[in-house]
Amino acid sequence: MKILLIGASGIVGSAIEKELAPRHEIVRVGRNSGQERVDISDSQSIRKLFERAGSFDALICAAGNVTFAPLADMSEDSFTLGLQDKLMGQVNLLLIGREFANDGASFTFTTGVLSRDPIAAGVSASLVNGGIDAFVRAAALEMPRGMRVNTVSPTVLVEAMDSYAPYFRGFKPVPAADVALAYAKSVEGLQTGQTYHVG
Amino acid sequence: MKILLIGASGIVGSAIEKELAPRHEIVRVGRNSGQERVDISDSQSIRKLFERAGSFDALICAAGNVTFAPLADMSEDSFTLGLQDKLMGQVNLLLIGREFANDGASFTFTTGVLSRDPIAAGVSASLVNGGIDAFVRAAALEMPRGMRVNTVSPTVLVEAMDSYAPYFRGFKPVPAADVALAYAKSVEGLQTGQTYHVG
Repeated sequence: MKILLIGASGIVGSAIEKELAPRHEIVRVGRNSGQERVDISDSQSIRKLFERAGSFDALICAAGNVTFAPLADMSEDSFTLGLQDKLMGQVNLLLIGREFANDGASFTFTTGVLSRDPIAAGVSASLVNGGIDAFVRAAALEMPRGMRVNTVSPTVLVEAMDSYAPYFRGFKPVPAADVALAYAKSVEGLQTGQTYHVG
Repeated sequence: MKILLIGASGIVGSAIEKELAPRHEIVRVGRNSGQERVDISDSQSIRKLFERAGSFDALICAAGNVTFAPLADMSEDSFTLGLQDKLMGQVNLLLIGREFANDGASFTFTTGVLSRDPIAAGVSASLVNGGIDAFVRAAALEMPRGMRVNTVSPTVLVEAMDSYAPYFRGFKPVPAADVALAYAKSVEGLQTGQTYHVG
């Protein structure tokens, strides 16, 4: 399969590449690195990515930004980044990408544990993750030409605990390699409309 | 208690008023009717509502618009209404309303079954409902001065089946009066961060 991997240089993206590269052609995509570049918060940038990259069998997005801040410090604007980048960025990857995707192609998006298991300063992340998980359950019903769509919702990563531990006390971290398995299940399996909780 | 009821003229709003009015002071708020007016998609309109209505003990929002359309016909813009109105409208009611709310006040928002049980043409509704349910779980952790926040997530209403039946085949509708009980539980109980599924 030809797989577009957005966020290829990240901790999760690197683990996904390690898991899938032995069996598939990976096109590494990043905001500032990789074979192709994209800013997922900009639908024009997304369209240009697909025009350059051409048809594909799977798209994985392991990227997406949200604002982390205490609720007391948040205003309407504090939600803009999450809505434009991680949320509508991934929605737009599907809306635009379906035009370029091969029959039966899969889309696999990334959400996270905070929709179910919230932490301080995580309200925007919780909102965005919950929104995408629900979007995927609905969109799977209406995908054209046998296409599929799932999300992977990991808890905090072992590899990120150096910086994230103070925010995730009591959470049992998972290795990125375990998270990568869920992307393989989505891409190489036949399920659709699923949220794969890892950890 | 003094309760601001947004969407008071709707099917759900009317049932909520019937349930709560015998025990509380209800301020009926609507887009085009009621004692007070508000356009929840406009944060300036929200702020003016609170400035006029003054302090309160409970806010209920039984309003919120999203676009219903087949996924095949949807573009990025098809999500704007849901994001600005039902989603950020309710988030902004909390962000702005907390400044005016009395100690221990509650916020009760409305989502819906489509986040878990999707239908054709409902992807924006699913996204918005899932986002708000998750937002509320997270926001509840950080509410100031003993404030609480919950969502009510009803299935389709008996009273709406004349127009909605073709879209909700196989769904067992619930009477609006049953849905209203969930708002009473949120307002008059002590729980927070909950999603009350009705039906």
